[in-house]
Amino acid sequence: MAANKAWTLASRPAAGVGEDNFKLVGSEAPRPKDGEVLVRNEWLSLDPYMRFRMNDVKSYAPTVQIGEVMVGEAAGEVVESRHAGLRAGDKVIAQTGWQLYACLKGEALTKVDTSSAPLSYYLGVLGMPGMTAYFGLKDIGVPQRGETLVVSAASGAVGSVVGQLAKIAGCRAVGVAGGKQKCDYVVKELGFDACVDHKAGNLYRDLKEACPKGVDVYFDNVAGEVLETMLRLVNLRARIVACGRIAEREESYCHKNLSVFIANRVKMQGMIVWDWREQYPEARKTLAGHIAQGRLKTRESIADGIENAPKAFIGMLKGQNFGKQLVKLA
Amino acid sequence: MAANKAWTLASRPAAGVGEDNFKLVGSEAPRPKDGEVLVRNEWLSLDPYMRFRMNDVKSYAPTVQIGEVMVGEAAGEVVESRHAGLRAGDKVIAQTGWQLYACLKGEALTKVDTSSAPLSYYLGVLGMPGMTAYFGLKDIGVPQRGETLVVSAASGAVGSVVGQLAKIAGCRAVGVAGGKQKCDYVVKELGFDACVDHKAGNLYRDLKEACPKGVDVYFDNVAGEVLETMLRLVNLRARIVACGRIAEREESYCHKNLSVFIANRVKMQGMIVWDWREQYPEARKTLAGHIAQGRLKTRESIADGIENAPKAFIGMLKGQNFGKQLVKLA
Repeated sequence: MAANKAWTLASRPAAGVGEDNFKLVGSEAPRPKDGEVLVRNEWLSLDPYMRFRMNDVKSYAPTVQIGEVMVGEAAGEVVESRHAGLRAGDKVIAQTGWQLYACLKGEALTKVDTSSAPLSYYLGVLGMPGMTAYFGLKDIGVPQRGETLVVSAASGAVGSVVGQLAKIAGCRAVGVAGGKQKCDYVVKELGFDACVDHKAGNLYRDLKEACPKGVDVYFDNVAGEVLETMLRLVNLRARIVACGRIAEREESYCHKNLSVFIANRVKMQGMIVWDWREQYPEARKTLAGHIAQGRLKTRESIADGIENAPKAFIGMLKGQNFGKQLVKLA
Repeated sequence: MAANKAWTLASRPAAGVGEDNFKLVGSEAPRPKDGEVLVRNEWLSLDPYMRFRMNDVKSYAPTVQIGEVMVGEAAGEVVESRHAGLRAGDKVIAQTGWQLYACLKGEALTKVDTSSAPLSYYLGVLGMPGMTAYFGLKDIGVPQRGETLVVSAASGAVGSVVGQLAKIAGCRAVGVAGGKQKCDYVVKELGFDACVDHKAGNLYRDLKEACPKGVDVYFDNVAGEVLETMLRLVNLRARIVACGRIAEREESYCHKNLSVFIANRVKMQGMIVWDWREQYPEARKTLAGHIAQGRLKTRESIADGIENAPKAFIGMLKGQNFGKQLVKLA
């Protein structure tokens, strides 16, 4: 019998998230019931949205209860299958939570092809973050050749894909990231036209300089001060993709620049990637094609061992990760 | 030679607008040049947007300069024409500003049919406010049968049309207005399902009660606290038509409830009715049809004489008007 380890929510964060908000619980790995599959996770995905699930507020998704396993997606291998569509050895992704083993109904797993891309990519560029970038840009941002796009958290799992897809679409792509190292990566490695360091203290001036023709699409992964500043820079008929608001994780920002919505006929639309779930295969194919052609690069930040998941998560909330944050479980 | 009178901007408002911000200037009526038309105005339209043109800030439309005639639309009669398409006696609407006489290029005037509707209606229900309601609702709000729509400034020129069109579309229509008298009118005369008095001090509770199934479309004529409260009530995939922000005329409100954009995939889009100007004739025809069938009612608040324009305008900003605010000039 394999030993499972699972991170549960021990307490809700008061000010910031601390390691004491989590508790590692050991148990025997569960056995699959009829129609279920036992998965051994190899990679755990850490994503900003998890921070909001730790709060006891009504949201689009249920909050994690005290004592429950932390919510999250993982990639792994089927160990034992009692579902007709899957067999031992299959590589899958699923919402297993932060743990080594999980039993899920077969329908809740997505089998992935690791001959064309590493398994971990299905949690990043070919996973939920990649899908978010792809559909948010295509269906809400709707970038047109020659337009200027800005994306925040530009070196992150979503932002890096957004900017590279915007370049492919013929846009000027400008990133916002924290620190010189990330900005250098965004411009030199990912091929963005410019990147503004939000830690440098001149956000408006630097963005204005990086966007001499204003901003037509703003893909917002952070909200807060960056969104507020972008509202001063958006052009006539600009589109804002409201995707993430990690900058407002502890406290709501006081937004005062909404007058531009009327003046410039601006559209802002919120998104949750699940809404496109039936189109994921099409998006994965397109993105895998871009990767194969060298037009879409990705970077992973890897923590080692399930014991380090909370530390890696807290670091990510502080922007200490660099690219898609993963935990290697096996 | 006829005597013209024109209200010019004397000074910019510091806190609120006062009558001393305006100056009445007398002169001879101008004479039309080749291609121009001399109009004698009969009705002056007073609209909330004019407040924003009094400020010296960059906006979608040029600010009024000190000493310039106040901006505004009027309805009147052609007195003398040097334009092939118009002749003396024609009834027209045009951006003449706050004055009795004006010369404009023939192309800048819209000839209207006063056999089917009174001239003043072309400044209200069949004019800019009616067009705003019609296109904002049709192209941004997109109300579906059975949905709930809320509109602020519900007894006003735009709001009253929005709510009645929503009823025609099969929606539950809920108004927000200031005071019991206006709310009674909105429900009893205009046929809204409910109306919330924002002066009663229980905005959230009263709106929640008036919208038991939440809100699918919010047509926002005021911004400020009403918008902030609506962000707590909007349903999945709600649409917000950002049309006016008169509640923020003196100071920007601090909006903190933007998280709902992501959680509920909310869309907010700003509008300026000019963008639909080529479709005005179609909308006028539809709205005139509703009026003829008794399904679209309107109410006018009439000040008498150009001398009273500033007083009526200030009253309107305070919500003292009741229906479309006009000044009778002749």
